[in-house]
Amino acid sequence: MNARKADKTDSVWRSVCPIARTLDLVGDRWSLLLIRDMRFGKRTYGELLDSPEGIPTNILADRLKRLEDAGIIARSEYQDRPVRYAYTLTEKGQDLGNVLLALVRWGEANIPGSRALRRPSAGSRRKVPVSRVK
Amino acid sequence: MNARKADKTDSVWRSVCPIARTLDLVGDRWSLLLIRDMRFGKRTYGELLDSPEGIPTNILADRLKRLEDAGIIARSEYQDRPVRYAYTLTEKGQDLGNVLLALVRWGEANIPGSRALRRPSAGSRRKVPVSRVK
Repeated sequence: MNARKADKTDSVWRSVCPIARTLDLVGDRWSLLLIRDMRFGKRTYGELLDSPEGIPTNILADRLKRLEDAGIIARSEYQDRPVRYAYTLTEKGQDLGNVLLALVRWGEANIPGSRALRRPSAGSRRKVPVSRVK
Repeated sequence: MNARKADKTDSVWRSVCPIARTLDLVGDRWSLLLIRDMRFGKRTYGELLDSPEGIPTNILADRLKRLEDAGIIARSEYQDRPVRYAYTLTEKGQDLGNVLLALVRWGEANIPGSRALRRPSAGSRRKVPVSRVK
Protein backbone atom coordinates (compact mmCIF):
# COMPACT_ATOMS: atom_id res chain seq x y z
CA MET A 1 0.00 0.00 0.00
CA ASN A 2 1.19 3.43 -0.88
CA ALA A 3 0.02 5.45 2.07
CA ARG A 4 2.13 8.46 1.28
CA LYS A 5 0.28 9.17 -1.93
CA ALA A 6 -2.93 9.61 0.06
CA ASP A 7 -1.72 13.09 0.96
CA LYS A 8 -2.13 14.65 -2.44
CA THR A 9 -0.64 18.01 -3.08
CA ASP A 10 -3.08 20.89 -2.96
CA SER A 11 -2.86 21.40 -6.70
CA VAL A 12 -4.61 18.07 -7.24
CA TRP A 13 -7.74 19.06 -5.37
CA ARG A 14 -10.42 21.26 -6.91
CA SER A 15 -11.17 23.03 -3.63
CA VAL A 16 -10.97 22.54 0.14
CA CYS A 17 -14.57 21.29 0.27
CA PRO A 18 -14.62 17.75 1.69
CA ILE A 19 -17.43 16.78 -0.72
CA ALA A 20 -15.36 17.93 -3.70
CA ARG A 21 -12.24 16.21 -2.38
CA THR A 22 -14.04 12.95 -1.72
CA LEU A 23 -15.44 13.11 -5.26
CA ASP A 24 -11.92 13.80 -6.53
CA LEU A 25 -11.07 10.35 -5.18
CA VAL A 26 -14.21 8.26 -5.73
CA GLY A 27 -16.51 10.47 -7.82
CA ASP A 28 -16.99 8.23 -10.82
CA ARG A 29 -19.35 5.47 -11.87
CA TRP A 30 -17.11 2.57 -10.79
CA SER A 31 -14.98 3.22 -7.70
CA LEU A 32 -17.76 2.91 -5.15
CA LEU A 33 -18.98 -0.29 -6.84
CA LEU A 34 -15.56 -1.81 -6.22
CA ILE A 35 -15.79 -0.72 -2.58
CA ARG A 36 -19.23 -2.36 -2.45
CA ASP A 37 -17.84 -5.59 -3.90
CA MET A 38 -14.94 -5.65 -1.44
CA ARG A 39 -17.39 -5.26 1.41
CA PHE A 40 -19.13 -8.32 -0.04
CA GLY A 41 -15.84 -10.19 0.35
CA LYS A 42 -14.46 -10.01 -3.18
CA ARG A 43 -10.68 -9.76 -3.19
CA THR A 44 -9.12 -10.79 -6.47
CA TYR A 45 -9.03 -9.14 -9.87
CA GLY A 46 -11.11 -11.98 -11.28
CA GLU A 47 -13.72 -11.74 -8.56
CA LEU A 48 -13.96 -7.97 -8.96
CA LEU A 49 -14.33 -8.36 -12.71
CA ASP A 50 -17.27 -10.69 -12.22
CA SER A 51 -20.03 -8.29 -11.22
CA PRO A 52 -23.39 -7.65 -12.88
CA GLU A 53 -22.32 -4.18 -14.02
CA GLY A 54 -19.61 -5.61 -16.27
CA ILE A 55 -16.70 -3.32 -15.48
CA PRO A 56 -14.23 -3.16 -18.41
CA THR A 57 -10.79 -4.61 -17.59
CA ASN A 58 -8.90 -1.39 -18.31
CA ILE A 59 -11.18 0.60 -15.99
CA LEU A 60 -10.86 -2.03 -13.27
CA ALA A 61 -7.05 -1.87 -13.44
CA ASP A 62 -7.10 1.94 -13.40
CA ARG A 63 -9.49 2.21 -10.48
CA LEU A 64 -7.62 -0.36 -8.37
CA LYS A 65 -4.45 1.67 -8.90
CA ARG A 66 -6.16 4.93 -7.99
CA LEU A 67 -7.86 3.53 -4.91
CA GLU A 68 -4.57 2.04 -3.73
CA ASP A 69 -2.79 5.38 -4.31
CA ALA A 70 -5.49 7.08 -2.25
CA GLY A 71 -5.01 4.64 0.65
CA ILE A 72 -8.57 3.34 0.30
CA ILE A 73 -7.58 -0.21 -0.59
CA ALA A 74 -4.44 -2.25 0.06
CA ARG A 75 -2.85 -4.77 -2.24
CA SER A 76 -1.06 -7.93 -1.16
CA GLU A 77 0.50 -10.77 -3.09
CA TYR A 78 -1.35 -14.02 -2.54
CA GLN A 79 0.44 -16.09 -5.19
CA ASP A 80 3.68 -15.98 -7.15
CA ARG A 81 4.42 -17.64 -10.52
CA PRO A 82 2.41 -15.94 -11.79
CA VAL A 83 2.17 -13.15 -9.25
CA ARG A 84 -1.41 -12.45 -8.24
CA TYR A 85 -2.70 -9.81 -5.88
CA ALA A 86 -5.56 -9.63 -3.44
CA TYR A 87 -7.21 -6.31 -2.64
CA THR A 88 -8.77 -5.41 0.67
CA LEU A 89 -10.28 -2.28 2.14
CA THR A 90 -8.17 -0.24 4.51
CA GLU A 91 -9.83 1.38 7.51
CA LYS A 92 -10.31 4.47 5.36
CA GLY A 93 -11.98 2.30 2.74
CA GLN A 94 -14.22 0.60 5.29
CA ASP A 95 -15.30 4.08 6.38
CA LEU A 96 -16.90 4.60 2.99
CA GLY A 97 -19.62 2.21 4.13
CA ASN A 98 -21.74 5.16 5.23
CA VAL A 99 -21.53 6.66 1.76
CA LEU A 100 -22.64 3.34 0.27
CA LEU A 101 -25.47 3.14 2.76
CA ALA A 102 -26.72 6.61 1.82
CA LEU A 103 -26.56 5.67 -1.87
CA VAL A 104 -28.45 2.40 -1.28
CA ARG A 105 -31.19 4.17 0.62
CA TRP A 106 -31.57 6.94 -1.95
CA GLY A 107 -31.63 4.45 -4.81
CA GLU A 108 -34.17 2.19 -3.18
CA ALA A 109 -36.43 5.12 -2.35
CA ASN A 110 -36.11 6.97 -5.64
CA ILE A 111 -35.29 4.59 -8.48
CA PRO A 112 -38.09 2.18 -9.39
CA GLY A 113 -36.87 -1.36 -10.00
CA SER A 114 -33.68 -1.06 -8.00
CA ARG A 115 -33.08 -3.96 -5.64
CA ALA A 116 -30.19 -4.34 -3.23
CA LEU A 117 -27.84 -7.17 -4.17
CA ARG A 118 -27.51 -10.10 -1.80
CA ARG A 119 -24.23 -10.93 -0.19
CA PRO A 120 -22.89 -14.07 -1.76
CA SER A 121 -23.86 -16.85 0.68
CA ALA A 122 -21.18 -19.31 -0.40
CA GLY A 123 -17.80 -19.13 -2.04
CA SER A 124 -16.84 -15.96 -0.24
CA ARG A 125 -13.42 -16.69 1.18
CA ARG A 126 -13.44 -13.87 3.65
CA LYS A 127 -16.18 -12.56 5.85
CA VAL A 128 -16.18 -8.80 5.94
CA PRO A 129 -18.53 -6.96 8.28
CA VAL A 130 -21.09 -5.46 5.97
CA SER A 131 -23.30 -3.83 8.62
CA ARG A 132 -26.34 -2.30 6.96
CA VAL A 133 -24.97 -2.37 3.42
CA LYS A 134 -26.70 -5.39 1.92
CA MET B 1 -39.31 19.40 -15.39
CA ASN B 2 -39.37 16.17 -17.25
CA ALA B 3 -40.56 13.74 -14.62
CA ARG B 4 -41.30 10.97 -17.05
CA LYS B 5 -37.67 10.55 -18.01
CA ALA B 6 -36.87 9.66 -14.41
CA ASP B 7 -38.19 6.18 -15.17
CA LYS B 8 -35.37 5.12 -17.42
CA THR B 9 -35.74 1.96 -19.40
CA ASP B 10 -33.92 -1.05 -17.98
CA SER B 11 -31.36 -0.97 -20.75
CA VAL B 12 -29.99 2.31 -19.39
CA TRP B 13 -29.07 0.89 -15.99
CA ARG B 14 -25.99 -1.21 -15.45
CA SER B 15 -27.71 -3.47 -12.91
CA VAL B 16 -30.59 -3.51 -10.43
CA CYS B 17 -28.27 -2.51 -7.57
CA PRO B 18 -29.46 0.79 -6.06
CA ILE B 19 -25.86 1.92 -5.56
CA ALA B 20 -25.07 1.33 -9.23
CA ARG B 21 -28.29 3.02 -10.34
CA THR B 22 -27.71 6.05 -8.14
CA LEU B 23 -24.19 6.32 -9.56
CA ASP B 24 -25.67 6.01 -13.06
CA LEU B 25 -27.44 9.29 -12.26
CA VAL B 26 -25.01 11.24 -10.09
CA GLY B 27 -21.78 9.21 -10.20
CA ASP B 28 -19.41 11.82 -11.57
CA ARG B 29 -17.20 14.55 -10.18
CA TRP B 30 -19.69 17.38 -10.65
CA SER B 31 -23.35 16.45 -10.16
CA LEU B 32 -23.27 16.23 -6.39
CA LEU B 33 -21.41 19.55 -6.20
CA LEU B 34 -24.32 21.17 -8.03
CA ILE B 35 -26.71 19.57 -5.54
CA ARG B 36 -24.52 20.97 -2.75
CA ASP B 37 -24.64 24.46 -4.27
CA MET B 38 -28.41 24.35 -4.68
CA ARG B 39 -28.74 23.41 -1.04
CA PHE B 40 -26.68 26.52 -0.34
CA GLY B 41 -29.35 28.53 -2.17
CA LYS B 42 -27.78 28.93 -5.60
CA ARG B 43 -30.36 28.91 -8.34
CA THR B 44 -29.15 30.46 -11.56
CA TYR B 45 -26.69 29.33 -14.18
CA GLY B 46 -24.39 32.22 -13.24
CA GLU B 47 -24.52 31.42 -9.53
CA LEU B 48 -23.83 27.75 -10.18
CA LEU B 49 -20.91 28.64 -12.41
CA ASP B 50 -19.37 30.70 -9.63
CA SER B 51 -18.01 28.02 -7.29
CA PRO B 52 -14.46 27.41 -6.11
CA GLU B 53 -14.15 24.20 -8.15
CA GLY B 54 -14.52 26.11 -11.43
CA ILE B 55 -16.96 23.92 -13.33
CA PRO B 56 -16.57 24.32 -17.11
CA THR B 57 -19.63 25.84 -18.81
CA ASN B 58 -20.23 22.88 -21.12
CA ILE B 59 -20.19 20.45 -18.19
CA LEU B 60 -22.52 22.69 -16.18
CA ALA B 61 -25.03 22.78 -19.05
CA ASP B 62 -24.79 19.01 -19.54
CA ARG B 63 -25.22 18.17 -15.85
CA LEU B 64 -28.19 20.53 -15.40
CA LYS B 65 -29.90 18.80 -18.32
CA ARG B 66 -29.15 15.34 -16.96
CA LEU B 67 -30.26 16.18 -13.43
CA GLU B 68 -33.47 17.68 -14.77
CA ASP B 69 -34.12 14.59 -16.91
CA ALA B 70 -33.60 12.43 -13.81
CA GLY B 71 -36.17 14.47 -11.84
CA ILE B 72 -33.54 15.59 -9.33
CA ILE B 73 -33.79 19.29 -10.15
CA ALA B 74 -36.56 21.40 -11.67
CA ARG B 75 -36.16 24.31 -14.05
CA SER B 76 -38.37 27.37 -14.14
CA GLU B 77 -38.25 30.55 -16.18
CA TYR B 78 -37.53 33.59 -14.03
CA GLN B 79 -37.00 36.09 -16.82
CA ASP B 80 -37.81 36.46 -20.51
CA ARG B 81 -36.01 38.59 -23.10
CA PRO B 82 -33.60 36.97 -22.76
CA VAL B 83 -35.11 33.85 -21.24
CA ARG B 84 -33.31 32.83 -18.07
CA TYR B 85 -33.95 29.82 -15.91
CA ALA B 86 -33.71 29.11 -12.22
CA TYR B 87 -32.94 25.63 -10.96
CA THR B 88 -34.19 24.16 -7.72
CA LEU B 89 -34.01 20.77 -6.07
CA THR B 90 -37.06 18.55 -6.26
CA GLU B 91 -37.96 16.44 -3.23
CA LYS B 92 -35.89 13.65 -4.79
CA GLY B 93 -32.99 16.07 -5.08
CA GLN B 94 -33.37 17.24 -1.48
CA ASP B 95 -33.20 13.59 -0.46
CA LEU B 96 -29.61 13.46 -1.71
CA GLY B 97 -28.70 15.50 1.38
CA ASN B 98 -27.84 12.30 3.22
CA VAL B 99 -25.39 11.31 0.49
CA LEU B 100 -23.76 14.75 0.77
CA LEU B 101 -23.60 14.42 4.52
CA ALA B 102 -21.84 11.04 4.27
CA LEU B 103 -19.36 12.52 1.77
CA VAL B 104 -18.68 15.55 4.02
CA ARG B 105 -18.03 13.35 7.02
CA TRP B 106 -15.75 10.98 5.16
CA GLY B 107 -13.80 13.82 3.58
CA GLU B 108 -13.37 15.68 6.86
CA ALA B 109 -12.21 12.52 8.62
CA ASN B 110 -9.95 11.17 5.90
CA ILE B 111 -8.61 13.97 3.70
CA PRO B 112 -6.15 16.32 5.41
CA GLY B 113 -6.79 19.98 4.64
CA SER B 114 -10.42 19.61 3.68
CA ARG B 115 -12.72 22.17 5.25
CA ALA B 116 -16.48 22.37 4.87
CA LEU B 117 -17.63 25.44 2.96
CA ARG B 118 -19.72 28.01 4.75
CA ARG B 119 -23.20 28.79 3.62
CA PRO B 120 -23.20 32.22 2.03
CA SER B 121 -24.40 34.53 4.80
CA ALA B 122 -25.68 37.28 2.50
CA GLY B 123 -26.82 37.55 -1.06
CA SER B 124 -28.55 34.22 -1.00
CA ARG B 125 -31.97 34.93 -2.43
CA ARG B 126 -33.56 31.81 -1.17
CA LYS B 127 -33.23 30.05 2.12
CA VAL B 128 -33.07 26.32 1.62
CA PRO B 129 -33.05 24.01 4.61
CA VAL B 130 -29.53 22.69 4.71
CA SER B 131 -29.89 20.59 7.86
CA ARG B 132 -26.50 19.08 8.73
CA VAL B 133 -24.85 19.83 5.39
CA LYS B 134 -22.74 22.89 6.14
